[in-house]
Amino acid sequence: MRNVAVIGAGVSPFGRLDALLYQEIGRPPVNDAIENAGIARKLIQSCYYGTCGGVGVGHEIMNETGLMGIPITRVVNACSSGSNAFRLAYMDIASGMSDCTIAMGIEKMKNSSMAVVGGGTRFQIEAKAYSHGSPFSLGGGGGMPAGFALMGRAHMKMFGTKREDFANIVVKSRKNASKNPKAEFQTQMSLDEVLNDVMVNDPLTRSQCCPRTDGAAAVILMSEDYIKEHHIDTPIWIKASAMGSHFLGGDPSYPPGISTDADTARRVFKMAGVEPKDFYERGFGECHDCFSVSELVHYEDFGFCKKGEGADMINDGVVEIDGDLPINPSGGLLSVGHPLGATGTRQIAEVFWQMRKDKEVAKRQVPDEHLDIAFTHTLGQPGLGFTNVMHVFSRDL
Amino acid sequence: MRNVAVIGAGVSPFGRLDALLYQEIGRPPVNDAIENAGIARKLIQSCYYGTCGGVGVGHEIMNETGLMGIPITRVVNACSSGSNAFRLAYMDIASGMSDCTIAMGIEKMKNSSMAVVGGGTRFQIEAKAYSHGSPFSLGGGGGMPAGFALMGRAHMKMFGTKREDFANIVVKSRKNASKNPKAEFQTQMSLDEVLNDVMVNDPLTRSQCCPRTDGAAAVILMSEDYIKEHHIDTPIWIKASAMGSHFLGGDPSYPPGISTDADTARRVFKMAGVEPKDFYERGFGECHDCFSVSELVHYEDFGFCKKGEGADMINDGVVEIDGDLPINPSGGLLSVGHPLGATGTRQIAEVFWQMRKDKEVAKRQVPDEHLDIAFTHTLGQPGLGFTNVMHVFSRDL
Repeated sequence: MRNVAVIGAGVSPFGRLDALLYQEIGRPPVNDAIENAGIARKLIQSCYYGTCGGVGVGHEIMNETGLMGIPITRVVNACSSGSNAFRLAYMDIASGMSDCTIAMGIEKMKNSSMAVVGGGTRFQIEAKAYSHGSPFSLGGGGGMPAGFALMGRAHMKMFGTKREDFANIVVKSRKNASKNPKAEFQTQMSLDEVLNDVMVNDPLTRSQCCPRTDGAAAVILMSEDYIKEHHIDTPIWIKASAMGSHFLGGDPSYPPGISTDADTARRVFKMAGVEPKDFYERGFGECHDCFSVSELVHYEDFGFCKKGEGADMINDGVVEIDGDLPINPSGGLLSVGHPLGATGTRQIAEVFWQMRKDKEVAKRQVPDEHLDIAFTHTLGQPGLGFTNVMHVFSRDL
Repeated sequence: MRNVAVIGAGVSPFGRLDALLYQEIGRPPVNDAIENAGIARKLIQSCYYGTCGGVGVGHEIMNETGLMGIPITRVVNACSSGSNAFRLAYMDIASGMSDCTIAMGIEKMKNSSMAVVGGGTRFQIEAKAYSHGSPFSLGGGGGMPAGFALMGRAHMKMFGTKREDFANIVVKSRKNASKNPKAEFQTQMSLDEVLNDVMVNDPLTRSQCCPRTDGAAAVILMSEDYIKEHHIDTPIWIKASAMGSHFLGGDPSYPPGISTDADTARRVFKMAGVEPKDFYERGFGECHDCFSVSELVHYEDFGFCKKGEGADMINDGVVEIDGDLPINPSGGLLSVGHPLGATGTRQIAEVFWQMRKDKEVAKRQVPDEHLDIAFTHTLGQPGLGFTNVMHVFSRDL
């Protein structure tokens, strides 16, 4: 595979953007990413964009940013749509088809066919001919919060995890997001405030569920050849990409968590030639904290601690920006918000800017010694299956 | 780029399949493609599927065919969804990420967010904030048949093309489809019957508009390394892939036709190292005949004849199965039908089987001397833009 790097990124403000057209949300981050990369836009040869609800918006945004004519591919993969689009933009260059591509994610949740509402769930997936009775399926239990709440309760029962442990993840999330001017929620919350928020599905209170948010994010990718030819400074190299799938309901033989996340993490770390301990020594990451429970089980599924020890990661401050393994310095889905298609590319913008020490992240900068490697992770549920996408990035080729 | 070939294909019956679930339509062609390839299904490492309306159906079909666990990517690109999925499955292997992938297309038009109805049009694209007044846009004229009818009338005015010329394309289409047991329309039509069919938008009568059809098609792709290792017979090599986009309304400076089709054809032929004349000598192809007018302008846009001479191609029998340059031996979209996501992979199954002289196409077999090279072409309209995808295939590496 040819070497490929991220060379620029742009992110819109995240929030309730009902009054804006898709184009008005998506144009600025595309233009910002091009400016951030410092390249002529005519270098861009291909566009991949992830969105669940935005029919044809890629064509409109490419047209309005002077990029019409290039191949434009729309990817729909629920909450993994943006990271999936990025993976395709990566393979496009890695294959030799293109030398410079743009990956974009965008969502207006009102227009989305799937809408996750903070403090409840309104999952409008197409009527299915049958239901599998899983806690994650509509027929079986009440949607996403119910599924992750059950996972949290199983975790509490099996490992003695407490409601406070999950809630502390939101406290950390809001603290980080208070330094992120693009985040939907920039106000800090105390542990008591999180615990006493409206109950959605025990142990998940409202602030432990990611909000219904609109937004867009774009990143520019480039081949090593072009990077040399065009003298690009500080490319952030893509060292590995992995993607997995699982039928709904998870793996009953697996402890509370997502077995396919554990599998995909193993594969992406292997492809990158790194191990979980390497992130403690010199890395950080952005994971898919759609709920507080999700982030806690990710610590375990990715091998950053043993199964059942996730609570220690948050309670001991390991995952704080100045901790041993910073997780979600942006504030994550819980506070930045989760426009389904945009989240994956928004995460990649975050790790790119962090590793470049860009002014965009100045107030929440991960310390120098942790900027060598980074990972991103999304988990989506398109219909009756899970899809996760992970990437590993490095400052060194 | 690594060399990649098609090694197996499966196509469902095309027609009104309201009573069937997505899984029931999609499972058989996936299983048939694996059997046609003669490989163990565990070799398949990645799935790309195109569908406009099938939320998450890729996960369900992969689950029910024993393929769950692999990366599953859904592509939505209107009528180019299936060919776009194939292009991604190609780049996945070409990049070195995988060695064996499956590309699938599927549509149930009742569930699709875009539904083209034979004998009229019901285009349910998301409400747009503004209309461009193009004949192709909803606000401006009445959808797809109106747009292509206007193109046909401009062609008549500029070049003296007659209603009979367009209608003759349907006569050829039905003749070929009468030898295709998977086609929706297998009954031949006379020129008079086509001309006297219900008028939709002059010069387009109902049978000159592709029908509203359900169906699915799948193809298996493999790397050269795996083909050698697994002793695969008669792979059909992918020599080139190209894709283009254009904002709605076409190019007013271009004669009646689609300028982006002409551009994409030039690029894909160049990448494959062939010229239009090579198809006369040793090739054939499947193009996106969503309307009779479309196929006629494709002859011209692809460089098979000069602008304005498309009528000669059909009237002189050039594009018949036993002609100098067989086009749409399957019967094309006009007679096989056009399930948006499935059409691109269905076309590729056709050229694959033709080039392999598979029993599937025995009754409509393109003569030996024309089986060296082949092209496929789709043209879609996702929202307010055009997207086309073309591929060139060869029996020789």
